[in-house]
Amino acid sequence: MTGRDEGADLRPIDPSPVIILVRPQLAENIGAVARAMGNGGLFHLRMVAPRDGWPQERAWRTASGAQRILEAATIHGTVAEAVGDLHRVFATCPRPRYIVKPVLTARGAATELREIGNRGLRVGLLFGPERAGLDSNDIAEADSLIRFPLNPDFCSLNLAQAVMLMAYEWWLAADETPSRVLQTHKTGIATKGSLDNFMRHLIAECDASGFLRNPEKRPGMVRNLRHLFQRGEITAQELQTLHGIITELAHQRRQGKNPKGETHGTA
Amino acid sequence: MTGRDEGADLRPIDPSPVIILVRPQLAENIGAVARAMGNGGLFHLRMVAPRDGWPQERAWRTASGAQRILEAATIHGTVAEAVGDLHRVFATCPRPRYIVKPVLTARGAATELREIGNRGLRVGLLFGPERAGLDSNDIAEADSLIRFPLNPDFCSLNLAQAVMLMAYEWWLAADETPSRVLQTHKTGIATKGSLDNFMRHLIAECDASGFLRNPEKRPGMVRNLRHLFQRGEITAQELQTLHGIITELAHQRRQGKNPKGETHGTA
Repeated sequence: MTGRDEGADLRPIDPSPVIILVRPQLAENIGAVARAMGNGGLFHLRMVAPRDGWPQERAWRTASGAQRILEAATIHGTVAEAVGDLHRVFATCPRPRYIVKPVLTARGAATELREIGNRGLRVGLLFGPERAGLDSNDIAEADSLIRFPLNPDFCSLNLAQAVMLMAYEWWLAADETPSRVLQTHKTGIATKGSLDNFMRHLIAECDASGFLRNPEKRPGMVRNLRHLFQRGEITAQELQTLHGIITELAHQRRQGKNPKGETHGTA
Repeated sequence: MTGRDEGADLRPIDPSPVIILVRPQLAENIGAVARAMGNGGLFHLRMVAPRDGWPQERAWRTASGAQRILEAATIHGTVAEAVGDLHRVFATCPRPRYIVKPVLTARGAATELREIGNRGLRVGLLFGPERAGLDSNDIAEADSLIRFPLNPDFCSLNLAQAVMLMAYEWWLAADETPSRVLQTHKTGIATKGSLDNFMRHLIAECDASGFLRNPEKRPGMVRNLRHLFQRGEITAQELQTLHGIITELAHQRRQGKNPKGETHGTA
């Protein structure tokens, strides 16, 4: 999947925002940023004055197959130059300074990014250098700030983690995966009729074995068994397996192979 | 904020799930996992058979202040042992195998994790080794699977990134930050009355300068100016500044200091 040799066949999925790393320091982080971008379906990477120059071999090592993003990245002298052809700019800023500016959550920003992109406008997201973050002049280039709501007692976020959260929210803003499904592979969820058929089989054998021989307790015990088997979705294949187990156990009991069968007898 | 020397004063914020790294390979990733956990308010870390033994100095280097999480981490021989005291177990699995199991998105899982934790039950989240992920036996220990909806063409997720996404969703499931606010620092949003007062000042000076001298165009031009100043929220402080600019420009024009003032004259 990662294709570490030639890299994954990543391409732009437009409209997708441009990630702009402002004065990034560590090449390892730049590579990890590219990998996170690939995870979230982003492609366009720009860098403003990377500290150690560009390209840097170490970035390719941490990109884990996202090298097409690194190969297509562009280098710019200033933030103003890097955003010149864009229509909207957001600045990520974990601790917003004392400035008057709209502040969005990453999730709120992702929704706006989709809306802006769908209008045919180009958007950029500024991420600051590892140690200091964006400075006041960088932030003045942005229309809005993005804040990651995270533990206020420990909000120092790694650069690639910040890009990951934004890429993830970007992808999810257009994702329609249901929040919970039962993965059933080749079988399917059993109908209530099949479940009832199984319950009758189970109860008949419980009756035959003597397990339900107390007539006062029997109705409650039957109901409790039904509660248990209704608790989660059950598949047609699983019901077949349970039918088989019960048939087999009952058969063994009738043939006297089950030592406990000896003591129970039928009602 | 990160307190790189003694580490941040991180403590458990219960009920929070236990992060269980199964056969983790790289100490750097374990440290980055601890940092991501701190970001998302998680604290409890367990490891099953870390490949290079434990402790590993390199983990402390990438934890960026989250060393209390590393210091409190426990080591276990098997997954079964690591989950023995828990009530529910989720397994993260980017590419779910052919098994019958509930599959949740990270966001859906975070909601369930909060609900389960609020019932007083202890939950664990399994994360597999970097290269291979969780194997079939590991996954059989889990009640449900968690899938990160990400770019299907590039879904190889770094271990610390996977923990980051889960920690982020965990934190957000109880977060009530509004998705967009205008941060105004010491000032506040201007009332419509203050804005109208400003518009009257602006239009009066536009009239005085002759800028609105065409009587046919005047109503539309005034409306367009009003549209512009209504487009975003404007603060009381910003209105004061604009008042000041207009007063100053008009004063200079009246004193003949503005060369353009000479040619316009008043209507």
